[in-house]
Formats: sequence, C-alpha cells, structure tokens
Amino acid sequence: MAVGAQDVKALRERTGAAMMDCKAALDESGGDMDKAVEILRVKGQASASKRAGRATSQGTVASYIHAGGSPGVLVEVQCETDFVARNEDFQEFAREVAIHIAAAAPQYVAIEDIPEDAREAERRVFEEKAKQEGKPDNVVERIVEGQLKKWAADVVLLEQEHVRSDRYEGKTIEQLRADLAAKTGENIRIARFTRYAVGEE
Amino acid sequence: MAVGAQDVKALRERTGAAMMDCKAALDESGGDMDKAVEILRVKGQASASKRAGRATSQGTVASYIHAGGSPGVLVEVQCETDFVARNEDFQEFAREVAIHIAAAAPQYVAIEDIPEDAREAERRVFEEKAKQEGKPDNVVERIVEGQLKKWAADVVLLEQEHVRSDRYEGKTIEQLRADLAAKTGENIRIARFTRYAVGEE
Repeated sequence: MAVGAQDVKALRERTGAAMMDCKAALDESGGDMDKAVEILRVKGQASASKRAGRATSQGTVASYIHAGGSPGVLVEVQCETDFVARNEDFQEFAREVAIHIAAAAPQYVAIEDIPEDAREAERRVFEEKAKQEGKPDNVVERIVEGQLKKWAADVVLLEQEHVRSDRYEGKTIEQLRADLAAKTGENIRIARFTRYAVGEE
Repeated sequence: MAVGAQDVKALRERTGAAMMDCKAALDESGGDMDKAVEILRVKGQASASKRAGRATSQGTVASYIHAGGSPGVLVEVQCETDFVARNEDFQEFAREVAIHIAAAAPQYVAIEDIPEDAREAERRVFEEKAKQEGKPDNVVERIVEGQLKKWAADVVLLEQEHVRSDRYEGKTIEQLRADLAAKTGENIRIARFTRYAVGEE
C-alpha cells in the first residue's frame, strides 16, 4: 500500500516524530497507523538511551505559586538546545511539573538522589514494624525491601504519577519526561526543584 | 497650633502609621510635618525592636522568572497575620525582593547565615592578598576586617541595596523590610530564598 502525505502528517501529529521517521514507519507497517506508532515507539526508546547521555546546558526555570501564596515551587528543566527550551511543549512540561510538585511535595528528583542515611532510617522503621508484627525473620527482609521501594516511589518526583491523573492518564513524571524527550528528540532532564510552604521551614 | 484632620491624614499617607500615632506626633511637633515624621520614625524604631521577637507564622511565597526563563527565584516572606499576608504592600515587597534576588544573586539572607568556613576561606584569601601586597602585619588585620565586612555586605540579601535604586532611593533590603514592618505594625521576616540559573547547578 502506498503511503500518502496525509497519513504521514497524521502520524507526525500523533507522535511528534520527524517527517522522515513517520514515512519510514508507515512504509514498514504497510500503512497501518497503530503499527507505525508502535514502530516509532520502539525506535524512540532506542534513541532515548542514546539521548540520555547527552549534555543539557539549555532549559528553563518555571514556578508555580498556589492561590493564597503558599506553597510555592521553583523547578529547573534542562534540554540540549535553546530552540527546544523556547518550545511550547517544553515550557508547558516545566509548568506542569511545578504544579505537580506543589501538590505532591516530593523530596527528591530521582531515586539516586535519596541520601543513604535517609534510606537507612526508613529501613530501620520498616524492620522494627515488621518484627513487632511478629513476621518471621526470613520474610522480614523481603517485606522491608518492598516497603522501601514503595516509600521511594512516594518521595521521588520522577516516580510519582502526575497529580492531574485525568489529564495525564496516570503517567508518571518520568513517563511524561520520556514522552517529551521522544517528541523533541532531545535529552530532557529535571535538574532540581524547591518547594516552600509558608511557616514549614 | 491646632492639628487638623487633613494634616493627620497627610502624615498617615506619608508614613503609614496609625491615625492615633499621627495625631499624637503632630501634637508633639506643634503641627510641624517633618518633625512629626521624625517623631514617628524614632517611635517606630522603638516598637520595631519589640516586633522583631514576635513569631511570624503567616506570609507568602513569591517568584520571579526573568524573560527567557532564567534566572528564576523563589522567596518566602513571613509576617504575623493572614491579614497582612494578603495586604498589597506586603505582596509587592515579596515580589520586589524576588526581582532583586534574580539580578543581585545574593547567597545568604542575613549576615548570621554565612557559614563560619565560608567566612574563614574568604578571610584567608584577603590575608594572603594583603601580605603579598607587602602590607605590614599590624595593618593586615584591619584591612582584612574591612574587606570581610564589604564582602559580607555583597553576598547578604538584607545588606544589599535594592537593584531598582531609582525606585527605592538606594535603600537596602533591610531598610525596605523595616519600612514595611513599621507600616504594617508587624514583624516581617525574609525566611529563605532560592535562585536557579539554567545550567549553573
């Protein structure tokens, strides 16, 4: 089946992928739109791992102040080029992450950012609790590992589902970040954030 | 000379002091407006030191993002009551401090916030420089103390003159804070700030 310009355009609008990649994906799928999306997604993941190492020296700082003046959030999101930094999707992502942080109050950007002593303190609490509940020693470790994993997902920004779950279909911030990276073709990085609630300091 | 309601109103507009205080100051100055301002100022400083100890559990978070998305600033300003937190002067002060921080890039809120090791590192640099310039030992200390004082004033938010010097007549952030405290009759405190410049982290 011949691939029409209309299909290429539709696929591009749906995925944000480059025109040439859309054409190639539709050729490969024999014009099947859903299959072409799948092909682009797989390809996107391959290039995402290449992207992840690339330097991000450009970007933007976004803020969100809740009605009434508290909490307030500042977040820095980085990309590779000034061109993407000024892109509307990129700007919106930064704003939406700020809004999310205001509501969800994460403590760290990524799991790697959790300090070892914070993790150990949490581990001791879970261990103590599991033992007090009379769990046998041989299962305590497994229970604690599970609880630690859940705890990390709760306090880490990238692991959290965006609070606007209706709008973002339960996607995590990491998934939204990866989507934006695929769409822009650049490495996208949430560099840091600050959240102030009045009197909480 | 009898004090007219017009004068009381004019003095109130000029100083932001309470009606009763304006009346008393004009009575005391015999109707002399400038002298009345002076009286209120002295009185204000007396009550300011009383105010300085009072708890600030209310306030607002303000942000400023420079055109182009960087730098961005988040600042928390505290006061005593929700009433003042919603006051326009208070909100404007918070905004103007955020704008100032974006331009001036202070490192600490107050002199007391400078960590001892940062101060000592700075001291060593100044000492080394003074010695290399061949200053005699007995004056090095005095020179270094002067340079340290100047350095502290440069990196401390409250000691900095507001960057909008035309608008604020060269007043420091601390002076503007004190003016607002006098005007609102509450203890005003800049609790903390964050400044992000893209890629600077």
